[in-house]
Amino acid sequence: MALLIREIAQLVDGELSGDGEQLITSAAALSEAGPGQLAFIGELRNADSSAYTSAGCLIVPKSTRSKFEGATIAVDNPKFAFAKAASALHPRKDLPAGIHPTAEIADSAEISEGVFVGAFCFVGENSVVGSGTHLQAGARVGSGVRIGKDCTIHPGVTIEDGAVIGSRVVLKAGAVIGSKGFGFVRDGELLIKFPQIGTVVIEDDVEIGANSCVDRGALGETRIGAGTKIDNLVQIAHNVQIGKRVVIAALSGVSGSVVIGDDCVVGGQVGFADHTTIESGAVIGAKSAVFPGKQVRKGVWAGIPVIPLPEYKRLNAHIRSLPKLRKEVQNLGELVNRLESLFRGRK
Amino acid sequence: MALLIREIAQLVDGELSGDGEQLITSAAALSEAGPGQLAFIGELRNADSSAYTSAGCLIVPKSTRSKFEGATIAVDNPKFAFAKAASALHPRKDLPAGIHPTAEIADSAEISEGVFVGAFCFVGENSVVGSGTHLQAGARVGSGVRIGKDCTIHPGVTIEDGAVIGSRVVLKAGAVIGSKGFGFVRDGELLIKFPQIGTVVIEDDVEIGANSCVDRGALGETRIGAGTKIDNLVQIAHNVQIGKRVVIAALSGVSGSVVIGDDCVVGGQVGFADHTTIESGAVIGAKSAVFPGKQVRKGVWAGIPVIPLPEYKRLNAHIRSLPKLRKEVQNLGELVNRLESLFRGRK
Amino acid sequence: MALLIREIAQLVDGELSGDGEQLITSAAALSEAGPGQLAFIGELRNADSSAYTSAGCLIVPKSTRSKFEGATIAVDNPKFAFAKAASALHPRKDLPAGIHPTAEIADSAEISEGVFVGAFCFVGENSVVGSGTHLQAGARVGSGVRIGKDCTIHPGVTIEDGAVIGSRVVLKAGAVIGSKGFGFVRDGELLIKFPQIGTVVIEDDVEIGANSCVDRGALGETRIGAGTKIDNLVQIAHNVQIGKRVVIAALSGVSGSVVIGDDCVVGGQVGFADHTTIESGAVIGAKSAVFPGKQVRKGVWAGIPVIPLPEYKRLNAHIRSLPKLRKEVQNLGELVNRLESLFRGRK
Repeated sequence: MALLIREIAQLVDGELSGDGEQLITSAAALSEAGPGQLAFIGELRNADSSAYTSAGCLIVPKSTRSKFEGATIAVDNPKFAFAKAASALHPRKDLPAGIHPTAEIADSAEISEGVFVGAFCFVGENSVVGSGTHLQAGARVGSGVRIGKDCTIHPGVTIEDGAVIGSRVVLKAGAVIGSKGFGFVRDGELLIKFPQIGTVVIEDDVEIGANSCVDRGALGETRIGAGTKIDNLVQIAHNVQIGKRVVIAALSGVSGSVVIGDDCVVGGQVGFADHTTIESGAVIGAKSAVFPGKQVRKGVWAGIPVIPLPEYKRLNAHIRSLPKLRKEVQNLGELVNRLESLFRGRK
Repeated sequence: MALLIREIAQLVDGELSGDGEQLITSAAALSEAGPGQLAFIGELRNADSSAYTSAGCLIVPKSTRSKFEGATIAVDNPKFAFAKAASALHPRKDLPAGIHPTAEIADSAEISEGVFVGAFCFVGENSVVGSGTHLQAGARVGSGVRIGKDCTIHPGVTIEDGAVIGSRVVLKAGAVIGSKGFGFVRDGELLIKFPQIGTVVIEDDVEIGANSCVDRGALGETRIGAGTKIDNLVQIAHNVQIGKRVVIAALSGVSGSVVIGDDCVVGGQVGFADHTTIESGAVIGAKSAVFPGKQVRKGVWAGIPVIPLPEYKRLNAHIRSLPKLRKEVQNLGELVNRLESLFRGRK
Repeated sequence: MALLIREIAQLVDGELSGDGEQLITSAAALSEAGPGQLAFIGELRNADSSAYTSAGCLIVPKSTRSKFEGATIAVDNPKFAFAKAASALHPRKDLPAGIHPTAEIADSAEISEGVFVGAFCFVGENSVVGSGTHLQAGARVGSGVRIGKDCTIHPGVTIEDGAVIGSRVVLKAGAVIGSKGFGFVRDGELLIKFPQIGTVVIEDDVEIGANSCVDRGALGETRIGAGTKIDNLVQIAHNVQIGKRVVIAALSGVSGSVVIGDDCVVGGQVGFADHTTIESGAVIGAKSAVFPGKQVRKGVWAGIPVIPLPEYKRLNAHIRSLPKLRKEVQNLGELVNRLESLFRGRK
């Protein structure tokens, strides 16, 4: 969607310098932007590079003396302002309302106004799809599912029976919501499946990555809080409770009944043992592990198992200097032996 | 499926107290169960909480003096008994036999009695689907595939050509069975694919998680033993041999030609280097790694690379106390230096 | 495709001994090969086992004195020669050109000669599919996608809008190419999505594993270089640049804007922090992590964070002997105390 530069300045609440009447049609990286495109400088130290861009407009940090000769919009947080402007310039793909003739919709399903249903989509009995939601090619929605408004369900997503999806939720290609969890009870040699008959609730404005999986509750529910963003190939097990605005990077695994508080940030390839608790605002570094029985407080954590980041760095330094420590102990041993010999020689 | 309380008591071989003639229609968590629902107390120490449940019937450990006033069924292993009863109360979703008009079945494929084939399913040439098996929406079965009885193939599963699937197998949404393995031979700059022309056998009662992958053998076969349960997002490479009743948690990766014996338990995010061997009954802790050339014996293992769990815990304690050790060595050094000065002063 | 033994000898540039006029129809493992099948001995020390195979022809290392009585082909690199011959014996599955009647192809899409489009495939507006490419059942191609010649797109693959795919590319089942990346800007409590409007380029001869994900660029592009091979369940984030002939094993995650040079080899479950750089020819051991800010030079690396392999092994040995070091320090402390007492006793 094209916007005038002054409209963008207004949108991001920034200070406009230069001609605000030019039209901007898209956003681009600083080095690639051309006329009619919006770019940004994230930090003051990058201001010099702005001389070389052909962008139609630059968002810059306040108090930048940019060498750029075109229009600029000065703000406190240029990356945030750029993201906001780019969202307006590049709204969600516009898909025409309507149900593709190849889609299979159960008679009892309720498809609201303005819904796009792509080729080979399947919607089961008694499911409800809210207005403005897109179901892209090959998306599969089970029975008794409730999907809110303006969701974007990418190709090949599977939503199993009874799942509840809020509004403005984005499920990327191949994501699986509401699969039965992984719980077994052993009695001697026999493994019997613990019932996986609960449900799953994905609240508003959640984003779930490509080929990520969110299992339903065993009993009770699995819940992903409003505004939470989950990357690709992440596993969320049965009965997990994730708070609001949590960010979880790719290939992390959250075991059964874990509780993650609001505003936590989780790096890639992190593992959480079942029944652990992460307090609101905790940051868990990539590749780390929360071991069984752990309750992680607010703060920054790293390691296998996680410890506070400063301690992790200190320990790592100690480990790196182990060869030196070993040598010191050896030298000390030799010195002590010499001392002892001298001493005994004196007797 | 509704059951009388006395029928449940009989099913789990438990001691009934109270009115056995009431009807139970479903299973639920202790805190959420209402009249007509079955719940359980796993451990004696939780017996007090039972006073507050509204469940229609409780499964309890033997010798519990529960404050619960309704019917109870006392057993040795309540969780196991509950799982067994819940399986009876919540059988596999009942889907009507028949082939959805949108499904594409090759003329030479053989679909047995009582099979459910959902919308947009595809079954290739010469494949066989056993009686009572469900192929849910969008499942894709290649050519020459054999699927046994009463399997549940969830939406969007892909079974590649020639795979052999036993009976009562559950493949969750997005699982890929029989993809070509990842093997290349390098000659100078050239990477050439090693042939991936073997097959894959999934034995009876196996469960494979959502978006998990099991590659076919390069030459020969990949095999998953009867009763083995694999969680979501797990990678099983070419020519892996997994025994019976093995449990593998999410995001673990098993490299080519690994052998895992019966009854092993593997945590989440574990990695196995190719050609390693895990003896029957071994337990591999989450996040650990089996390095090349390793043969893992029965017992509990942890770490990168894996070592026996007690040793792992000891080493971790040593690592955690490295700052203390460093300080001790430093103090000792100072003491020795003082001693030496004193000694030399005496000479 | 059947070949005469002498044709195979010629193909792999090997020295034929025995009857070259027999027909070979397929490749197999040494222990399983029968008449009419080709097998190989990788190393001289395995030459004895060749006496027991029933293979129709063996590829052997030069200077082997095999006890095998059939035809042999001697080469410098038997595994490579075997792979080359097997590729000829087992060419890509032959699928008849044509578009399945259930497939949905946009009017403006361009499907070249000799393309196979399977059941329930979807191809969006203005997309181009090159000659000889196979789209297997349920593959989904968005709008404005360009796919080269002779690609194999397995079932259930999703290619999002605007992606560019080279020739002879293999995308295995469930792979997702061009999903929007995972980038958010935080302003106080608000998380706003950074634009994910770039593109993705998969060069010639790339292979991408089952259920792996390659995100499009945020701005600019994500690029996978020619001949690179990526295993199952791998995550490639936005704006990653991967060179040519790189090999990446399963469950590895490459964060945003990482640059990996040509001919790198990456083990399984490796993690790369965003904006890190890996120089051409580097080898990163399984399960390791490249931490933020790191530039990895050519060589072999391991650990969390990665260090050169010899150093990693040395450090691991030091860690393993920590209990011994602790004991030594303790003994030394006691000895010093005794010395001190003796010394003070003398005063």
